[in-house]
Amino acid sequence: MIPIDPDRFLQDLDRLRAFGAAGVGRGVVRPAYSAADIAARDWLVEQIRDSGLTPHVDPMGSVFGLADAPVSLLIGSHSDSQPEGGWLDGALGVIAGLEIARAARTSGGPPVSVVSFQDEEGRFGVTTGSAAWVGDLDRSTLDGLTDPAGVTLGDARAALGERCGAWLDPARFSGFLEMHIEQGPVLDRAREAAGVVTAIVGIRDCVITFSGAQNHAGTTPMAERRDAFQALSAFNTALNARLSNIVTPATVWTIGHVAVHPGAHSIVPGRAQFSMQWRDAELSRLDAMEAVIRDVADGVARSGGFGLEIGPVFSVAPVAMDAGLRRALCDAAETEQPGRWRDMPSGALHDASNLSGAMPSAMLFVPSIDGISHDFAEHTEPEDLVAGLRILARAADQIARGG
Amino acid sequence: MIPIDPDRFLQDLDRLRAFGAAGVGRGVVRPAYSAADIAARDWLVEQIRDSGLTPHVDPMGSVFGLADAPVSLLIGSHSDSQPEGGWLDGALGVIAGLEIARAARTSGGPPVSVVSFQDEEGRFGVTTGSAAWVGDLDRSTLDGLTDPAGVTLGDARAALGERCGAWLDPARFSGFLEMHIEQGPVLDRAREAAGVVTAIVGIRDCVITFSGAQNHAGTTPMAERRDAFQALSAFNTALNARLSNIVTPATVWTIGHVAVHPGAHSIVPGRAQFSMQWRDAELSRLDAMEAVIRDVADGVARSGGFGLEIGPVFSVAPVAMDAGLRRALCDAAETEQPGRWRDMPSGALHDASNLSGAMPSAMLFVPSIDGISHDFAEHTEPEDLVAGLRILARAADQIARGG
Repeated sequence: MIPIDPDRFLQDLDRLRAFGAAGVGRGVVRPAYSAADIAARDWLVEQIRDSGLTPHVDPMGSVFGLADAPVSLLIGSHSDSQPEGGWLDGALGVIAGLEIARAARTSGGPPVSVVSFQDEEGRFGVTTGSAAWVGDLDRSTLDGLTDPAGVTLGDARAALGERCGAWLDPARFSGFLEMHIEQGPVLDRAREAAGVVTAIVGIRDCVITFSGAQNHAGTTPMAERRDAFQALSAFNTALNARLSNIVTPATVWTIGHVAVHPGAHSIVPGRAQFSMQWRDAELSRLDAMEAVIRDVADGVARSGGFGLEIGPVFSVAPVAMDAGLRRALCDAAETEQPGRWRDMPSGALHDASNLSGAMPSAMLFVPSIDGISHDFAEHTEPEDLVAGLRILARAADQIARGG
Repeated sequence: MIPIDPDRFLQDLDRLRAFGAAGVGRGVVRPAYSAADIAARDWLVEQIRDSGLTPHVDPMGSVFGLADAPVSLLIGSHSDSQPEGGWLDGALGVIAGLEIARAARTSGGPPVSVVSFQDEEGRFGVTTGSAAWVGDLDRSTLDGLTDPAGVTLGDARAALGERCGAWLDPARFSGFLEMHIEQGPVLDRAREAAGVVTAIVGIRDCVITFSGAQNHAGTTPMAERRDAFQALSAFNTALNARLSNIVTPATVWTIGHVAVHPGAHSIVPGRAQFSMQWRDAELSRLDAMEAVIRDVADGVARSGGFGLEIGPVFSVAPVAMDAGLRRALCDAAETEQPGRWRDMPSGALHDASNLSGAMPSAMLFVPSIDGISHDFAEHTEPEDLVAGLRILARAADQIARGG
């Protein structure tokens, strides 16, 4: 076994939290390429060097700590945060990777490297640093990406100065393990220690618009109305009923944004525009749900005389985790926490989504108290953090030894 | 009979339309106290003087054309428009009043006066000019009222300069008749010529807020959610079912404004705030509807674990039209357009709502093509306008002669 040091791991998590500390609970403000983010990465480079690993910063600013071997197992996540973020999120996976890589190095264990990807939180896109590394983003156009304030990635990267080296060849890693907080309530509610991720769900997302007739809310009898908000409500009610037949308990769908036009108390809405997003680990179920969504929307439009527009469907395919790496995580979880772990999909995207195209990849979840994440209140009990570290280290040992 | 001149009536409607003509169809832009509105009222004063009636402008800027008698029947409406208004709306009732009053004056008929109230469209409140006249608004605080841009009524009235005289005593009028377009589709759909208004509906209006739990739309299972938009949808569906048992075909209720927070595709809404407005001609039904609305909202909140806030309920009581004046309008309608008229409530507020507290009041509706109003496209066929004028003149003749 790799001789991890849980106290050092928890101390380093606390030290990382000092970079961009929000001053509100344990919250951090460490968006990609901010001064706090770059300082945190400089600190990480120091820890890597002190451990006898070789630091390397790639052109995006992702920080690697490389084992002294032609091929090694990569463990990590990201240390940038949302504009208002929690202290664990990606930081947990980075420090877990650091602890396992340095413990393996010091003890003469199997070769393990660590990584903190840049801009997982998507200031300039979606999981930008890992996507650029594995080639899912065209590297020649990276510098033209802009954040919501209009800053280009080229300008943001300029703050890195002389830190950056070349792109690493992904082939120097035999696989990728990422530990992360669940960011949902499932493990916490069940009082379980860990989740072994089966797949990162696919996402479909579009904007739907019902058009009716804008009318005076006093003089237009109910029977004469084509009220676009009523169309939305009827769609939502019918959709919930229809989807219940084809989903699993892990499937989710959400109407998160609603705009009713013109939006006055005394005017019957003439237009209702809303977001429709659905997520599932199975491509076939995403397809089936899309067919139901289109059919229900068509039905509401036809029966009520509404115009219907379904915008372009943004689509991210589900990504199954590597079977061999998953098995190692399951074995380790059962050894460390017998009966206190489960298989589960990830409802959120992670760097492992991108990595799985380049190498065998798998993920381990630890509980999020009350499912809270992307919030200063995000937290996990230290014993659960350490339990996760032990499972990850055990699995990494087995995998890196080629077990 | 009062010898009305339909051609002169239609010509004067066209002449009034020239003030603030929008240049789009027949639309007008003639908000209260705008230059176009004041010019239109100066023109009306000229027509009044030319007719041998006595013009009088009250402190709000409402224009009267007074018959030469201690007591007369008042006929009119308002000539101000919405920021984007139709050519008929209140203008129709003003020119109908002008035509009947001058025809009565010229022919030695019964004493009829005409009025164009100021700010019926509510730049500074709700039916402001007539409310101030009958004392429903405290006259000492009028000048402090502000429009949505922050202009005070005091500053707006200053534009009237030397035009204004004293407040008239409402007791000099024996009753009030108002002809208006329906602003709804009922008469047009039924191809009927007129509606005799039974009552002006009461209005209740409030803001309702459901509070749930804001969560990540990928990692929060459906069973764990308290989605505030789902609360709104469930409320709307249950409300429609429950109200159907207690309403009449003329009852209306509307959710016209909806705000879902935070309003992002990937976030389960934590809060849904929306307007709830309902209108009916019976006070008891408004009460019963309010009880159902509160009960349904409570039920949704309790069963789904949502917070519920129902804001203050703005309330306008229903106003029954005077039975004697209604009877005269019904008799005249049946004589002029046998079988082509109906009794109906008014779903919108009018100056007659205020006047009915000060004197017997009644209203006559003519069709609105496709129910369109408060829109440049508002229109009514000339033969329907003239049919309405004839009914109104016949009823006025009977009423003013004390018949």
